[in-house]
Amino acid sequence: MKTVLICGGIGKRMFPLTEDKCLLKFLGKTLLEHQIDTAKEAGLTDFIIVGNSQNIGSMERITTNISDIAVKFVVQKEPLGMADALRNASQFLDSEVIIVNPNDVFEGFAYNKLLDAYRTHSAISYLLGYEVADYFPGGYLVTNDEGNLTGIMEKPEKGKEPSNLVNLVVHLHRDPQKLLQYAESVQTEKDDIYECAIDSMVRDNYKIKVVPYTGFWYSVKYPWHILTLAQWFLDREQGYISPSAYISEKATIKGKVVIDDNVKILENAVIRGPVYIGPNSTIGNNSLVRDYSHIGADCVVGYSAEIKGSYIGDRCHFHMNYIGDSIIGADCSFGAGTALGNLRFDERDISVRVGEEPIDTGRNKFGAIIGDNSRTGVNASIMPGIKIGPNSIVGPNVCLTSDLEPDSFIMAEQVSNTIRNRFRH
Amino acid sequence: MKTVLICGGIGKRMFPLTEDKCLLKFLGKTLLEHQIDTAKEAGLTDFIIVGNSQNIGSMERITTNISDIAVKFVVQKEPLGMADALRNASQFLDSEVIIVNPNDVFEGFAYNKLLDAYRTHSAISYLLGYEVADYFPGGYLVTNDEGNLTGIMEKPEKGKEPSNLVNLVVHLHRDPQKLLQYAESVQTEKDDIYECAIDSMVRDNYKIKVVPYTGFWYSVKYPWHILTLAQWFLDREQGYISPSAYISEKATIKGKVVIDDNVKILENAVIRGPVYIGPNSTIGNNSLVRDYSHIGADCVVGYSAEIKGSYIGDRCHFHMNYIGDSIIGADCSFGAGTALGNLRFDERDISVRVGEEPIDTGRNKFGAIIGDNSRTGVNASIMPGIKIGPNSIVGPNVCLTSDLEPDSFIMAEQVSNTIRNRFRH
Amino acid sequence: MKTVLICGGIGKRMFPLTEDKCLLKFLGKTLLEHQIDTAKEAGLTDFIIVGNSQNIGSMERITTNISDIAVKFVVQKEPLGMADALRNASQFLDSEVIIVNPNDVFEGFAYNKLLDAYRTHSAISYLLGYEVADYFPGGYLVTNDEGNLTGIMEKPEKGKEPSNLVNLVVHLHRDPQKLLQYAESVQTEKDDIYECAIDSMVRDNYKIKVVPYTGFWYSVKYPWHILTLAQWFLDREQGYISPSAYISEKATIKGKVVIDDNVKILENAVIRGPVYIGPNSTIGNNSLVRDYSHIGADCVVGYSAEIKGSYIGDRCHFHMNYIGDSIIGADCSFGAGTALGNLRFDERDISVRVGEEPIDTGRNKFGAIIGDNSRTGVNASIMPGIKIGPNSIVGPNVCLTSDLEPDSFIMAEQVSNTIRNRFRH
Repeated sequence: MKTVLICGGIGKRMFPLTEDKCLLKFLGKTLLEHQIDTAKEAGLTDFIIVGNSQNIGSMERITTNISDIAVKFVVQKEPLGMADALRNASQFLDSEVIIVNPNDVFEGFAYNKLLDAYRTHSAISYLLGYEVADYFPGGYLVTNDEGNLTGIMEKPEKGKEPSNLVNLVVHLHRDPQKLLQYAESVQTEKDDIYECAIDSMVRDNYKIKVVPYTGFWYSVKYPWHILTLAQWFLDREQGYISPSAYISEKATIKGKVVIDDNVKILENAVIRGPVYIGPNSTIGNNSLVRDYSHIGADCVVGYSAEIKGSYIGDRCHFHMNYIGDSIIGADCSFGAGTALGNLRFDERDISVRVGEEPIDTGRNKFGAIIGDNSRTGVNASIMPGIKIGPNSIVGPNVCLTSDLEPDSFIMAEQVSNTIRNRFRH
Repeated sequence: MKTVLICGGIGKRMFPLTEDKCLLKFLGKTLLEHQIDTAKEAGLTDFIIVGNSQNIGSMERITTNISDIAVKFVVQKEPLGMADALRNASQFLDSEVIIVNPNDVFEGFAYNKLLDAYRTHSAISYLLGYEVADYFPGGYLVTNDEGNLTGIMEKPEKGKEPSNLVNLVVHLHRDPQKLLQYAESVQTEKDDIYECAIDSMVRDNYKIKVVPYTGFWYSVKYPWHILTLAQWFLDREQGYISPSAYISEKATIKGKVVIDDNVKILENAVIRGPVYIGPNSTIGNNSLVRDYSHIGADCVVGYSAEIKGSYIGDRCHFHMNYIGDSIIGADCSFGAGTALGNLRFDERDISVRVGEEPIDTGRNKFGAIIGDNSRTGVNASIMPGIKIGPNSIVGPNVCLTSDLEPDSFIMAEQVSNTIRNRFRH
Repeated sequence: MKTVLICGGIGKRMFPLTEDKCLLKFLGKTLLEHQIDTAKEAGLTDFIIVGNSQNIGSMERITTNISDIAVKFVVQKEPLGMADALRNASQFLDSEVIIVNPNDVFEGFAYNKLLDAYRTHSAISYLLGYEVADYFPGGYLVTNDEGNLTGIMEKPEKGKEPSNLVNLVVHLHRDPQKLLQYAESVQTEKDDIYECAIDSMVRDNYKIKVVPYTGFWYSVKYPWHILTLAQWFLDREQGYISPSAYISEKATIKGKVVIDDNVKILENAVIRGPVYIGPNSTIGNNSLVRDYSHIGADCVVGYSAEIKGSYIGDRCHFHMNYIGDSIIGADCSFGAGTALGNLRFDERDISVRVGEEPIDTGRNKFGAIIGDNSRTGVNASIMPGIKIGPNSIVGPNVCLTSDLEPDSFIMAEQVSNTIRNRFRH
């Protein structure tokens, strides 16, 4: 049994963060690694990873150090969807496969349920169906009385759902080449060749088993989903402090924390878990990190900085900042006094502009989303829901109220009035 | 002996704070309750409270829980002064009464001195005369050699004071109905019917005894008087920490503190008394509360906030703020980096505009006066002596240099200059 | 043997700091006192101090308390250079002298080397030659094979240095009157009469010995040199905590510190040495002083302030500030939230305007240079490399991007927009 990890997609809605969602790191590991770990727990050790030209190198490096697995890599030249990804991987699809999208984070027993069904029911494919109680804007799996697929309905209107089973792409195919043959003849203008191929197989009376699943499932679509996922990873992790971490006796650690190798936590710093702190990071004197904050590697949370409910990339530097409910890319630094507002005066939910459209984050506390390698000057203020493109600079004293494009530098122009010789009046 | 508490007045000069001065809370109790406590200590347990339509309900609720007292309530429809208040309460004035204005805070032995005089000297009324060494802008009690009143002189010019005894309204009347009769026939255009009635009684040879008093007396007239009064209450209170309070071993408590029920003081917080902290409030990590600060109930003094010499209402939230020598109403919150300036560059006394007129506070360190339910954004700056009306918002990065009306929202308009593609120049 | 300390010069390039470099204080002593200490260690106890009308009084006061020395004072009316200084001191130059410029900080064994040469070699003068490995923009001592001077070459072009010995004004003269005679007949338009006189003596075949020296030498020319010198003084000093200092058990002291008399270090303050703290200064709750910071006397580093790598004059007040890599005169105070930026976004070296010219400090982390008796308001921001003249004020919320003249007051003019009755829309 091989596991195909579909990593060739480009998450445009993640801007200004990385488009490669499978490279997002949680608790020191990329989503890709977390997926491989989950699969290994279910006994799956033979992987095919479909990437794109941008991420394939990183994925090769990352997987090199994982023991007891075999991996084949496939490059998908353009992000043309799952069927195209499988077509590119065709040469390796010579036996049963499980197809997984690493953006879909789920629990390991999903594999066990799928494999149980495979062992006990004869069918050509086995699809995981996520049981929902409320409306979910996804594809619904329609089944007959025996629990076999009769069709897939994409995003029905609310109230018109044909079932309570949402299509979660953890799919086992006994004959992937057959699936590819069907995909060849699909005619569609949408990005749904894979689903159409399955539909066609159903119409040709192939038996496709739907396997219900009720565990955790979360799919990263927008940047703020990272916060929810960080929370989930922290909640299921056991507390851990690396023996190589230095924690001052005057530091305070409360609640569950995951503190990685060579972390330093200095005097009067306070960590209120659940919190993750990545390797080699320093939590400086008199700082505060709390409420599901997730700090990357090689960061410095300097003197008098507060990080609350935020996801911080690698190599970021803070001092005298308030960073609340925000998502910060790698290699960012913040001038003393820079504060990220995270609450509207009217306490309404905070929206973020995605493309041209404002999308409600569903959060009434939400800060900024800041791309890699950005900086702020002293006493800069950044409003809730603002996006800052990578490689950008917010000048000192700027109050940033709209999104900043990549590679930009915004400066405040201050009109001032100087009185000279003020003692001689 | 009944005690009449005159609470129907409206303190317009207290804007933007509550006009009901008798509802101001110190050490968890309203001024009204403090007055009742003081009277009870002198054995006075029978009260008539004259309120207005706005505060009468609150006063009924507040007094319900005070044991061993009897209270009658009277509503004064318009704030027409003390004589009018007594006229409204006429039906209950069937025997000796002591009349008190709860804005006048004084020590309990004032009652004892008055009652002693009542028992040992025959007179129709007994007025407390506050002995002053320096000029005081009040009404002066003129006496003959036997210490009996010969007249009241309102606000004489400095240097022309007719005595060293200022009229402090803690007045005992054997025959309040007689006083009311006299009040009926007073003809005056000022708000002094009560004083004129007493003057007329003196002219008709009624004997009115003046009882000298040298203890503490303070009358709340302007908002900043609250700070002085908070200081007095703290000074005479014994230190106390409620057994239900949680104080981290890493917190520091220095000096005299009064810490109410369910207060939480977290790691690395510092309290430098004299300080009062109201019930259910949290003093967060690494914060500082000092120098006669008086914090209300259900407040959060969050991370890295300093509260110095300030009076804070209930349910206020702070983090990363400097709040110095300020008076903050209830339900206010402050964005990270908001600082309240409390010192002029020329170190002169700070004035506050009351109505159209700037009034010198007599303080060279004084911050802001902020009405209930107001908010500030991140990195807002508020200048010394500024008033912010209730329900108002000071936007992020605003430097507030003039008073803000109630229900207002002030935003700074920042001109900025953005360089795009800064790496391609 | 007398030692002549040439203190009459005016260091215009030190603006906005004191022009009297010999009065700069390090570890609680002026440069003048440090020089006298160094000389005393070499057995030199007889001093002639040439000052100007401005500093002579201070120098008299300062030297009064130094035991076991004899001092004569000479006033140089105008800053006309070293030869003029010596001419003014002529009456006291009746025997061997060592001439020293107290701006030149060097190690005590320089004297020993000079005195050894004087005892073992016959010559009329002995000049210290600072051995350099790399180009140094100074005067070069040219010598013959026997190590005797053949000439002085002022600031040769790089690569055209005539020797590796730079002229360090620690000069011993057997016959100072002879030197003065030669100085009389020098004709030059530059400020180099002294050097020309020596040159003339060489031409007349007087033997002048050059004594090589390889120890520490640093000359304060620009304000930022103070930081280097503070570092040097701290590095060679042994750690010391005065018995009269109060250090809270909850304070943290790390690394080497020199803590002077009556210093108070309060709870949760952190000192990360090397750090010097002058007498009577208070390091307040939860503050941080680190990285070669040098704090003067009677300062208050208040709550939540960070002082990093900075030189602070006497009687300065901070709270909630970031002061990084800066030089602050005496009697300065900073509003809450004032931050001194100390890093360019492009991370290039920071320049300071000296006169009309920008001079590279050679530092990529450098903050501001602030003259005596200056102040800032709340949330002011000051850019790297900015100079603020003495007696100046930077208003609240100002972002200071250019130098501020002495006695100035700069205010930001903010355009704001107020919505009234915001609840009635």
